[in-house]
Amino acid sequence: MNLPSKHLEDLVDHFASLPGVGRKTALRLVLNLLKRDEEELGAFSRSLGEIKQKVCSCKECGNISDADICGICSQTSRKHELICVVEDIRDILAIESTQQYYGLYHVLGGVISPMEGVGPNDLNIDALVDRVQNGEVKEVILALNASMEGDTTNFYLYRKLADFDLNITTLSRGVAVGTELQYTDELTLGRSIVNRMPFDMNLVRK
Amino acid sequence: MNLPSKHLEDLVDHFASLPGVGRKTALRLVLNLLKRDEEELGAFSRSLGEIKQKVCSCKECGNISDADICGICSQTSRKHELICVVEDIRDILAIESTQQYYGLYHVLGGVISPMEGVGPNDLNIDALVDRVQNGEVKEVILALNASMEGDTTNFYLYRKLADFDLNITTLSRGVAVGTELQYTDELTLGRSIVNRMPFDMNLVRK
Repeated sequence: MNLPSKHLEDLVDHFASLPGVGRKTALRLVLNLLKRDEEELGAFSRSLGEIKQKVCSCKECGNISDADICGICSQTSRKHELICVVEDIRDILAIESTQQYYGLYHVLGGVISPMEGVGPNDLNIDALVDRVQNGEVKEVILALNASMEGDTTNFYLYRKLADFDLNITTLSRGVAVGTELQYTDELTLGRSIVNRMPFDMNLVRK
Repeated sequence: MNLPSKHLEDLVDHFASLPGVGRKTALRLVLNLLKRDEEELGAFSRSLGEIKQKVCSCKECGNISDADICGICSQTSRKHELICVVEDIRDILAIESTQQYYGLYHVLGGVISPMEGVGPNDLNIDALVDRVQNGEVKEVILALNASMEGDTTNFYLYRKLADFDLNITTLSRGVAVGTELQYTDELTLGRSIVNRMPFDMNLVRK
């Protein structure tokens, strides 16, 4: 794709460097931006240029935040003895939207992935151990994605935390709510039979 | 989706304002950007902020260009008596990639669409009439998309240009190369029988 303008090409290249955005999509986005007024583009450009300086990590949980301590960690009504370990901020948003969790979080910032050159030292793991060591933490919930990298990281975290006096739990795996059994994969269905749980009338009523 | 940072929220909103980008995708893009170094973000931000000033329209054809006259209009080897009318720069890229066209272009910047509030005066139509009036144009090819808006615009342009001494042509419609007849829609197949053309041995060999 040979664009007729060097500046256009530059901006298209920048957009095309984003994950899941190809050059054709990038061009479509840039053409849309060209139709807007200068003021709007200026605001977008400033917001983009300043984001790294303006945004910081919460000193407690590693979540993205405007202040030193994020909105969740500073809520006194939350259960501070409960920490849910997640990969990134999107997992926090997903769990928060369930309205079923009232503890704190710990954001690793990724998972151990030798293929992508991410080792334990690249993740926010030492801070988690510090929190467990110094605080009144009673339970750590490992809520990483059920991928090979997620499992590896779970295993590493378990080893790191096993010596402390706390419960280490993980999300329950099983048949998704509203799914038909015949379409559930064997692995999930097999595990859900092995790990069957007491029938609970409350869950049926909901 | 309640993001923990105002600045993050701002940038996500800007990305989510792009066509085809929802808030979840926007957040994914911004999280990816946060992992880059300041220098790269600065270059992206500058490129975005300056695009409107740096890029201009070609005074001849309306295409996006760095100079007053774009690369295509300034090529003397092209047939200046042939003008292909297109909606935007992406259509030029598509036609150029066929390597079958050696004339000039005229970029309308859209099509007539009462639904979206785009009338003939919002498009680059007067400049086309000027070019036909003043130049040595012998043929105008209407190469707009085969949508209702495209057909309306074709009709409007035809009325505007009918009085001049020139050929007005349009792209041939018919069965796409490599398509199976049974999967072609009736409208296209019907038209391609009505507008059947002489068998050409050269097209078979290619």
